[in-house]
Amino acid sequence: MSDSRIAVLGVGLMGADHVARIQSRISGARVAVVNDYVTDKAEQLAASIPGCRAIVDPLDAIADPDVDAVLLATPGPTHEKQLLACLEHGKPVLCEKPLTTDVETSLAVVRREAELGVRLIQVGFMRRFDDEYVELKALIDGGELGDPLLLHCVHRNPAVPDNFDSAMTVRDSLVHEVDVTRFLLGEEVTSIQIVTPTPNPAARQGLFDPLIAILRTAGGKHVDVELFVTTGVAYEVRTELVAEKGSAMIGLDVGLVRKSAPGHWGGTITPSFKERFGRAYDMEIQRWVDAVRRGGITGTYVEGPGAWDGYAATAVCEAGVQALQSGQPVAVSMVERASIQAGWHR
Amino acid sequence: MSDSRIAVLGVGLMGADHVARIQSRISGARVAVVNDYVTDKAEQLAASIPGCRAIVDPLDAIADPDVDAVLLATPGPTHEKQLLACLEHGKPVLCEKPLTTDVETSLAVVRREAELGVRLIQVGFMRRFDDEYVELKALIDGGELGDPLLLHCVHRNPAVPDNFDSAMTVRDSLVHEVDVTRFLLGEEVTSIQIVTPTPNPAARQGLFDPLIAILRTAGGKHVDVELFVTTGVAYEVRTELVAEKGSAMIGLDVGLVRKSAPGHWGGTITPSFKERFGRAYDMEIQRWVDAVRRGGITGTYVEGPGAWDGYAATAVCEAGVQALQSGQPVAVSMVERASIQAGWHR
Amino acid sequence: MSDSRIAVLGVGLMGADHVARIQSRISGARVAVVNDYVTDKAEQLAASIPGCRAIVDPLDAIADPDVDAVLLATPGPTHEKQLLACLEHGKPVLCEKPLTTDVETSLAVVRREAELGVRLIQVGFMRRFDDEYVELKALIDGGELGDPLLLHCVHRNPAVPDNFDSAMTVRDSLVHEVDVTRFLLGEEVTSIQIVTPTPNPAARQGLFDPLIAILRTAGGKHVDVELFVTTGVAYEVRTELVAEKGSAMIGLDVGLVRKSAPGHWGGTITPSFKERFGRAYDMEIQRWVDAVRRGGITGTYVEGPGAWDGYAATAVCEAGVQALQSGQPVAVSMVERASIQAGWHR
Amino acid sequence: MSDSRIAVLGVGLMGADHVARIQSRISGARVAVVNDYVTDKAEQLAASIPGCRAIVDPLDAIADPDVDAVLLATPGPTHEKQLLACLEHGKPVLCEKPLTTDVETSLAVVRREAELGVRLIQVGFMRRFDDEYVELKALIDGGELGDPLLLHCVHRNPAVPDNFDSAMTVRDSLVHEVDVTRFLLGEEVTSIQIVTPTPNPAARQGLFDPLIAILRTAGGKHVDVELFVTTGVAYEVRTELVAEKGSAMIGLDVGLVRKSAPGHWGGTITPSFKERFGRAYDMEIQRWVDAVRRGGITGTYVEGPGAWDGYAATAVCEAGVQALQSGQPVAVSMVERASIQAGWHR
Repeated sequence: MSDSRIAVLGVGLMGADHVARIQSRISGARVAVVNDYVTDKAEQLAASIPGCRAIVDPLDAIADPDVDAVLLATPGPTHEKQLLACLEHGKPVLCEKPLTTDVETSLAVVRREAELGVRLIQVGFMRRFDDEYVELKALIDGGELGDPLLLHCVHRNPAVPDNFDSAMTVRDSLVHEVDVTRFLLGEEVTSIQIVTPTPNPAARQGLFDPLIAILRTAGGKHVDVELFVTTGVAYEVRTELVAEKGSAMIGLDVGLVRKSAPGHWGGTITPSFKERFGRAYDMEIQRWVDAVRRGGITGTYVEGPGAWDGYAATAVCEAGVQALQSGQPVAVSMVERASIQAGWHR
Repeated sequence: MSDSRIAVLGVGLMGADHVARIQSRISGARVAVVNDYVTDKAEQLAASIPGCRAIVDPLDAIADPDVDAVLLATPGPTHEKQLLACLEHGKPVLCEKPLTTDVETSLAVVRREAELGVRLIQVGFMRRFDDEYVELKALIDGGELGDPLLLHCVHRNPAVPDNFDSAMTVRDSLVHEVDVTRFLLGEEVTSIQIVTPTPNPAARQGLFDPLIAILRTAGGKHVDVELFVTTGVAYEVRTELVAEKGSAMIGLDVGLVRKSAPGHWGGTITPSFKERFGRAYDMEIQRWVDAVRRGGITGTYVEGPGAWDGYAATAVCEAGVQALQSGQPVAVSMVERASIQAGWHR
Repeated sequence: MSDSRIAVLGVGLMGADHVARIQSRISGARVAVVNDYVTDKAEQLAASIPGCRAIVDPLDAIADPDVDAVLLATPGPTHEKQLLACLEHGKPVLCEKPLTTDVETSLAVVRREAELGVRLIQVGFMRRFDDEYVELKALIDGGELGDPLLLHCVHRNPAVPDNFDSAMTVRDSLVHEVDVTRFLLGEEVTSIQIVTPTPNPAARQGLFDPLIAILRTAGGKHVDVELFVTTGVAYEVRTELVAEKGSAMIGLDVGLVRKSAPGHWGGTITPSFKERFGRAYDMEIQRWVDAVRRGGITGTYVEGPGAWDGYAATAVCEAGVQALQSGQPVAVSMVERASIQAGWHR
Repeated sequence: MSDSRIAVLGVGLMGADHVARIQSRISGARVAVVNDYVTDKAEQLAASIPGCRAIVDPLDAIADPDVDAVLLATPGPTHEKQLLACLEHGKPVLCEKPLTTDVETSLAVVRREAELGVRLIQVGFMRRFDDEYVELKALIDGGELGDPLLLHCVHRNPAVPDNFDSAMTVRDSLVHEVDVTRFLLGEEVTSIQIVTPTPNPAARQGLFDPLIAILRTAGGKHVDVELFVTTGVAYEVRTELVAEKGSAMIGLDVGLVRKSAPGHWGGTITPSFKERFGRAYDMEIQRWVDAVRRGGITGTYVEGPGAWDGYAATAVCEAGVQALQSGQPVAVSMVERASIQAGWHR
């Protein structure tokens, strides 16, 4: 199966990041088209990617017959029109949040997709793909902790741009917690209250920060969210689930920590080397593939441990097997590296 | 640049895992050839991969002009011959450990590569690509903790196959800690001692388990390693560095934990959403690309939150902005999902 | 200085616990009088304590010339009268919460003490004496984290008696968090809201559990409290402070954990053996004193390591000093314990 | 029962600490006699304690008819003679380690006590009274983790005095781990090896630091101990037990952490408020007793929350009960503190 050809619309911070991701870390796809209202930026980016074109009009990019799917990283106000175009052309689209900037247009998009009868639109709530949220969701669905009762969420940013206002805290930060609530609890949110405590002195005049959002779901579950975007500390996103038979917290920098009867707290040890080092294997192979592809230029086809490292390990282990038998310290015998290394590039 | 064509030699547990990895998670490469001494297995696997052939003789696979690089997951005793063949054909090779099974042949391979003057052989010590080891290495190299003095390593497996003996504990488990020692400390190991305490009652008769390995490096640094392969618990790999100005531990299931003057312990909070959710973005895009590619068959081009989820989030946030102004609870207004969903596949 | 003579009024669960505490762990005081409306219980308890009498009327106990101070563990409705009696007799009194059961009588007691011009009444908010709260208070007062902005509190009980209702959750559980708020923030609470989510199925019919309390202080600080008294798990009391320059959490079962710029989380390592083992020394000496006092009866004056343990340690260390010189394993030489132990009691 | 009269011999750092402990935190005992070879120091200390005398000759102190028991905090070389004197006079004695400074005299003391047939000597291995060691011992004895196999111990000091040498590391630091080994495993140590890695550059010339001690017990169990006394960081004492069915670590600054099948790690949540706040209650009562005793001088009989704090809590909870019914924010109504406080001292 050949790679899917993606048009990335909007190549600002987030869009450019997605372009790099697709080119370097995603298999089965390539960036075929880029588009941005800053046309120069799109042109330059396209030039750096084999087989990639810049297209000036986003609707042309969507319609292009050599585009299989669309990644929308354009500003929110343009989403409605672009999403509807994707639907008309039957192009799958991954749309960075928000779907659209108001409820009416969002609903119109939902209705149009439903009329077409095929699910083409995915929204970029990426937390649903985060290991810890996935683990927490599985813990809930597994039923061991019983019914969920409460969620306590914390969303902290070290700083925000000067133009950031409290409505943005709601629309850009809280929106993730709203989706987390819906994802974890599987219920719609039915009411919301916002508490505005005395603001952080470091917050820009007029910015209510921190905010506390209090949500209630259709099933009467309570969710509170601390939103604090001028902490000066770091990025912290935390969710605690409180359920009938125990609680669990993610985002503590220590993996999922769970408390349940009879009075234990703790987490899970990785069951095998696959879980523990799966990503390391991915990285190892990716780095090696990259080194191999660059090898004609760099003169080395290795990024990582080389033959000498294999030899050294063998020498130590051979001595180790002797030591296992004797119980005494055994000296490791190796040739001088310098006697060999002369022949090597770098 | 077109994808590198990889021959995977040996498609047992580890080799098959690498084949799946290259096909699904590695960009810039594809599996062009597979080989195994169980020829049926190789044939079947090749048939499942577009553009992939099975080749019966590993040396033919290495020599094949349509192979750019070789991944060696064959049994250790065959490595020497296969590595030398890779060198003769100038093919980059990633060799799963061990390099070879004895010191003399390992050295011969090292010498041959050095004579050719180009680094073609990489050895599969994948821990060097693990986030925690990378972080620990960076901490050492950054110099904040001063010179390393000691390493305490723990390597625990829940169970091993029936044919596993103590020499395999040394050659297959300890070998990783040997490489970790050399990687972290940047020094060769000069002596080794093995302590055999009273064995775990659960260990097979004749298996010395746990073992304690005591290494000393060229610079006089001490490394001790607990090797315990019948714990019945889980996979645990832990390294504690003790240095001049503090210590740091990885593998505690809680990220790197560091202790340093004046009497603090702790870790690092993720600085931004990129570090925190980078992998989630990768997963999100990969899942979406996969859904798009399967869409013609499944009838949905979405794996993840869809348009309704975007609409629901918009509706809640819009109510949130009102609540921000009023300070009172605001009901969230949404249409009934059932009024729309009729039109949807799945 | 001779020991203060305490009258303990009310010797139910809490009062009896205080009697035991004063007799066994508190220096400088002894229980001289006990009182309870169940007179038999008081009589029995008094009989078990050297120099202790039971007095039937609590006001007589307060007035007794051989009572220096009063500990009030009687039911709340009796407090007003008893506190006023203590004030009239000039007796210092430690009053378990609540001060009184309604605002008017509480205020009357406050006014009466103020008229007398001497502080005699202490209220039993014992968290102010807990190491973690003390550490958190010191962290706030030290100013490193800047002004406090928010508190997130959690108060969980595994279970409550059948007669427990939601007003008791407020009066008996929330009351501690109210004092914690006032203690940590140094501000009065000016408003309170209670959210009642769908109750835990395990909660008795009619009990709103969990509850969420939302407090606001005079300075506009926000405090939220989860009150959940039917968790079935364990006793969990947690407070997170969010301040201008960082945050800190206590009650996580891992000591105070703090997050502050530049992106670090962590705790404090005990600076010296005094902090680490101070309590162990206390326990050691107390147990030894107890053993000495019981020795005439038990025939042993030791509770803990004995002379043999001292000998064994000396023997190992002496071999250790030899091993330090030789670098080789040194066998430890000791006589057979049985050759000596014959002479010993137990 | 009247208080036991203790003679404290040696009132240097450790002895003086014990004097303070007995006077302020230990019930059932008082310091009746102090002794030190620096006679002025003993005189001064005695003068500060009601009913306490200084006695110049330690043997006179032991023999004194008004001494019930002896606490020995004198230098090790004097222990033999003083212990034998305690035995002759039938006086219970708590002897700070070491029992004596060499194996022969230690054995002589053991034999003499055995001849007398009554256990009078306790040795000051205080870790046996530390909560975490007690919990670890109970975990071992409970049998859930099966037979112990290994101990990994770490003993780190930030710094040592200039006269500290490596033999002292063995005799003063390792000695504790020797007792921990014997206490936890219930077996004698049969051999010992000491590894001397390249020393910490910060260690004084000639001091081998860190040291690694490798012990083997009668049952073939392995114990390794890192001894590092110039870390510059803090006091760290850690023990990891590795057993047949799991492992457990104490001293990580996070309580006992345990790993066991099926792949879980974790600790224990406090079961009830007694365990969680027991010490806080002790502290609360002790501070109150102290305040009561000092009240005639200070003019206040309170150290902690006073009547106002009780009133404020009552006012907030009363508003809370209203808020529970209404679901709306309720303002808290209180009088101005200034209107009352005028009457108060401090």
